[in-house]
Amino acid sequence: MSSFNSIVSLEEARRVAIFGGTHGNEMSGVTLVNLWVKNGAEIQRKGVETKPFITNPKAVEKCARYVDTDLNRAFTPENLSAPQGDNQPYEVQRAQEINGIFGPKGSPDAYDVIFDLHNTTSNMGCTLILESSKDHFNLQMMNYIKKAIAPSSCLVLLNEHPLLKYSTSRSIAKHPVGLEVGPQPQGVLRSNIFEAMRVILKHALDFIELFNEGMEFPSCTVEVFRVLERIDYPRDANGNIIAMVHPNLQDCDWEPLNPGDPMFQTFDGKTIRFQGSGTVYPTFINEAAYYEKQQAFVTTRRESLVASSIRKV
Amino acid sequence: MSSFNSIVSLEEARRVAIFGGTHGNEMSGVTLVNLWVKNGAEIQRKGVETKPFITNPKAVEKCARYVDTDLNRAFTPENLSAPQGDNQPYEVQRAQEINGIFGPKGSPDAYDVIFDLHNTTSNMGCTLILESSKDHFNLQMMNYIKKAIAPSSCLVLLNEHPLLKYSTSRSIAKHPVGLEVGPQPQGVLRSNIFEAMRVILKHALDFIELFNEGMEFPSCTVEVFRVLERIDYPRDANGNIIAMVHPNLQDCDWEPLNPGDPMFQTFDGKTIRFQGSGTVYPTFINEAAYYEKQQAFVTTRRESLVASSIRKV
Repeated sequence: MSSFNSIVSLEEARRVAIFGGTHGNEMSGVTLVNLWVKNGAEIQRKGVETKPFITNPKAVEKCARYVDTDLNRAFTPENLSAPQGDNQPYEVQRAQEINGIFGPKGSPDAYDVIFDLHNTTSNMGCTLILESSKDHFNLQMMNYIKKAIAPSSCLVLLNEHPLLKYSTSRSIAKHPVGLEVGPQPQGVLRSNIFEAMRVILKHALDFIELFNEGMEFPSCTVEVFRVLERIDYPRDANGNIIAMVHPNLQDCDWEPLNPGDPMFQTFDGKTIRFQGSGTVYPTFINEAAYYEKQQAFVTTRRESLVASSIRKV
Repeated sequence: MSSFNSIVSLEEARRVAIFGGTHGNEMSGVTLVNLWVKNGAEIQRKGVETKPFITNPKAVEKCARYVDTDLNRAFTPENLSAPQGDNQPYEVQRAQEINGIFGPKGSPDAYDVIFDLHNTTSNMGCTLILESSKDHFNLQMMNYIKKAIAPSSCLVLLNEHPLLKYSTSRSIAKHPVGLEVGPQPQGVLRSNIFEAMRVILKHALDFIELFNEGMEFPSCTVEVFRVLERIDYPRDANGNIIAMVHPNLQDCDWEPLNPGDPMFQTFDGKTIRFQGSGTVYPTFINEAAYYEKQQAFVTTRRESLVASSIRKV
C-alpha cells in the first residue's frame, strides 16, 4: 500500500469469495451460495473471479450451527498450523482446508475479499462487520453500499476489541467482510431477509468492479459502531439464567441505552437497569447462538471513521 | 361420562401435569417448568395436584428439538408397547418412561390433564391445540381462557385429521392440551412470549380449580380452526426447496388465504399462488422445525363447536 497526494493506491481485488454456511443453520447465506454454485451469472463482474463456497457442509446438512466447534472461531494461528489429521475436531480440519484454498491467512496468496454471510435472531437489520478501522478499501466499500441502498439502511459494526475479536472464516482474506442480516430464526428462510442480503452483495460486487476498472473513490467518513463490551445474562450461583432481556430493550438493537435504562427482567418481574457511565448502542440483543457464549448483547460506541481516497495501483 | 338435563357430568381433574422441553429448544416451556420444579407455588390450586415435568432432558441439555427422534411423535401404540431396552431410540425409551408415570395412555390411571408447552417460529400468537372436538371439558376450558384473557386473544387449533394427527406427549392424558406460543426463535427466550404462556397457564389452572369446586359451566360455542391440509414448499426433482413463503403470506397466520392469493416466491422472483377451491386459514407458517417434515404451513377451516354444559360428578 502506498499513498500519493493523499490517495491510497491499492491492488485490484481480482479474487473474491462468498462464504455461506459458516453456521449451518443460517439459511439466507446457505441458500444464496447454493444457488450461485449452480448458476453464478448474478455474481459475475468484469475482471473479478467470484467463488461461492459452502464452508461447513456437515453443519448445513444437520441444520446446526456447527458439528464439533464453532467454525467462525476456528481460524486461529494454532489451529491453522496444527498437524493435519482425523483426530482434530471437524471444524479445525475444515478451517485448514479452507485456509489452503482461500489463504494462507496473512500471505500475499490469500484471496482479496471474502464475504461471509450470516443471519441473526437479533433485530439488527443489515449489518456489515469490519475487523479493522484501517482497511480503507473496506471502508470505501461500506460507504458505497450505504449510499447505494439508501433510503434503506445498512449499519457497520467494527470489532477491533483486543479480547472480543475472534478468528473468523473470512479473516483469511486481505479484506474480510461479514454480512449479518436479521431477525431470522435459525433454520428458517424468510424472503425479506434473503432479498436484503442479496441486494447488499450486489452493491458490494459492483463496488469491486468499479474499483478494478480504475474509478477513484474520494475521501469520506463512515459511521461505525465499535464493539465495547460483552454483557451476560444475570445468573445464579449454578450458572443458570435468572432474567430475560427486558421488553424495553428486546428488538432495540442500535438504539441508545442510557445509564438507568431497563436491561433485564427477572422471572419474578424485577427490572435490572444498565449501570454504565454513558450512552452505549447495544446490538446482537438476544441472539440464540450467544447463550452458550454467555452473551445477552454487546455494547458499542458510535464513531466516524475517515476513509482515505483510494484507487487501484 | 353421563348426561342429565343436557349437563355432562365429568370426573374431577385431580391430577394435572405441565410438560416443558418436549422439544428441547423451545425455551418458554423449558424455563417455566424449571422454575416451577424449584418453586411450584404459582401453579398450586386447591384440590389439584400439579406436576411440572421436563419431558426430554437430553434435548434440553443440547438445546435441540430432539436427540434421536421427535418425542412429540413418539407416543404411538407400537412404541409404547415395544420391548424396553437401550437399543431403542432415546425418545422411544423416554416415551415409555413418561407413559409409565403419567399414563398408561387410554387407561383410567392416566393423568386427567396434561399441558404441553411449545414455542413456534411462526407468528401464531397464543394457540391452544386440541385433539378432539368431543372433549367438552377441554372446550369449556378454551372458552374460559379466551374470556379470561380478552382483549388479548388466544386461538384454538383442532387437529383431528386422520392422517395429520400425531401421537403427542400430552396424548396420554384424558384431556390433552397443547399450548403453542410464538413467534420465538429456537434457543431464544423472549419476555413477551414467556409472560403470555404464563398467563394462559394461570387461567387454565383457575378453570380446573373452579370445576373441581363444583362450578357449573353452561353450554357455549367455541371457535376453532380445524386442520385440513399440509402444504409443502415447492421443490425440484432432487427435493431441494426452490421457493420461500411469499412476503404477503409470511407472518399472516390465521388470516384468510383465498384462491389466487400469493403463497410462495421462487428464488428468481416468481409468485406461486394458492390454487384451493375456497378460503382457508393458514397457520404454522414457516415454522423452523417443519422444514424436515415437508411442511411450509397447514391450512385450516374455521368452525364453531358447541360445548355442552359441564359440572363435576
